[in-house]
Amino acid sequence: MGHPFDPGYVAEPFIGLCTEYPGEDVYPPSRFRTEWGPIFHRGRLDGSARALVIGQDPAQHETIVRRILVGEAGRRVQGLLAKLGLLHSYVFINAYLYSVYGSVNASTRRNPALIGYRNRWLDALLLDQQVEVVIAVGTAADEAWHTWRATAAGQSVDVAYAAVTHPTQPESASRNDRTKLAAATKKLLANWNAALQLLSPHVLHPDVATPLVLYGDAWADGDRIGIPEADFPAGLPAWMHEQDGWARRSGADDLAKRRNITLTVPKGVVT
Amino acid sequence: MGHPFDPGYVAEPFIGLCTEYPGEDVYPPSRFRTEWGPIFHRGRLDGSARALVIGQDPAQHETIVRRILVGEAGRRVQGLLAKLGLLHSYVFINAYLYSVYGSVNASTRRNPALIGYRNRWLDALLLDQQVEVVIAVGTAADEAWHTWRATAAGQSVDVAYAAVTHPTQPESASRNDRTKLAAATKKLLANWNAALQLLSPHVLHPDVATPLVLYGDAWADGDRIGIPEADFPAGLPAWMHEQDGWARRSGADDLAKRRNITLTVPKGVVT
Repeated sequence: MGHPFDPGYVAEPFIGLCTEYPGEDVYPPSRFRTEWGPIFHRGRLDGSARALVIGQDPAQHETIVRRILVGEAGRRVQGLLAKLGLLHSYVFINAYLYSVYGSVNASTRRNPALIGYRNRWLDALLLDQQVEVVIAVGTAADEAWHTWRATAAGQSVDVAYAAVTHPTQPESASRNDRTKLAAATKKLLANWNAALQLLSPHVLHPDVATPLVLYGDAWADGDRIGIPEADFPAGLPAWMHEQDGWARRSGADDLAKRRNITLTVPKGVVT
Repeated sequence: MGHPFDPGYVAEPFIGLCTEYPGEDVYPPSRFRTEWGPIFHRGRLDGSARALVIGQDPAQHETIVRRILVGEAGRRVQGLLAKLGLLHSYVFINAYLYSVYGSVNASTRRNPALIGYRNRWLDALLLDQQVEVVIAVGTAADEAWHTWRATAAGQSVDVAYAAVTHPTQPESASRNDRTKLAAATKKLLANWNAALQLLSPHVLHPDVATPLVLYGDAWADGDRIGIPEADFPAGLPAWMHEQDGWARRSGADDLAKRRNITLTVPKGVVT
């Protein structure tokens, strides 16, 4: 097998979507880290996807890899897809092309140029395609879905849909309080179980036939799955897809943290 | 035009070359920064290249962009190609897939697995292709060329060839001594002028018909040219190809410097 890689944007409409994309006029730099460029997708663009996952926005690992949902949140979603029998037949896009800085105001969220561009991706991935289930991760993703679903094209497609809690919401909500984290994780896994029960009957063409096994009350072994090497661009080292926490925003103040990303090869790789 | 990008490795033999490549058994980690992964090329892989440039090894900017010769050395070579009328019809590979750490010993340099893989790239780029001139940048590149040229395939190809001084050799050799730097730069430009005079008559299909204008005794305006956006993967921000010096090996000691790369958005981009 060697090192399979993702070829990226090799056919229309994706070549066009990655050549002409919204910039600072649509994504204000006061609200988005436009300085790091747009990050478009992860997964299959060749029509083989059976699931579409919509996320929110890329963070620092995504900025380096130039693929989305490659950190801890991505690992958890990868586990969710595996419970549906989907090991490679999926594709991810985000509600936002650029990393959110602070919060996104309504006029930006509702900007027709932002929505129109995103809808072109959704059209490309869903119209006359084989996608059977759509999963929205977080509220911005849910809004993105419903906005597209309200278009004429969006109404024409027959897919199952579930909006789920964002995979790292428990950590965000509990701020290092272990009791709160356990409770929030339990709640998240119940939410994901409901989505699995809703979606599972609609996955008619899984990569591997997989009896549905629901989550317990806490993360178990195998619930988090490494990002497949084949989802990354050519030549990236193994630790980039096997591990997390190797990219951080570094610097003494907010501006420095905005301007710097430090990559650190994990311990044990260089000896 | 939007933001043209390089699609990368989309056809054979390049898909295969970027899937199966030599690792630590061929490139010992004591001599190469294998931990950052291989970096394969820059430029055209679609058969449109008229010039092949062979460089030495990738550095830190190349590690982030995943394309070679994208820093100051790349800018200077870009200027050399422009003097031959070549603005986009070129391709670059390196003698080594990984960044050199220290120096390369003879047994590594002569490893048949290292040479054999590199020769597969040279075969792919030169046999039954349109390349008219080959430029080797530095001594490792010159050796790579002659090693391939000694193969049966290498002997079958009719191209003009010049080995030139490495573009940043003046800086390396003069260590902040301005007088030495000026003298070394003058010597480099004379060396490059000789190459231009040798190669220019063989560039029969330039992108733009360009009367040969030689270098002066020092770098002049326009001698250094930004890396075209179309040579970079999709979505990378403009400062990555317009500017240099935004990636550095950071840390207090040699091991830390080996394990860390810090990217810094240039001043003026985030305001």
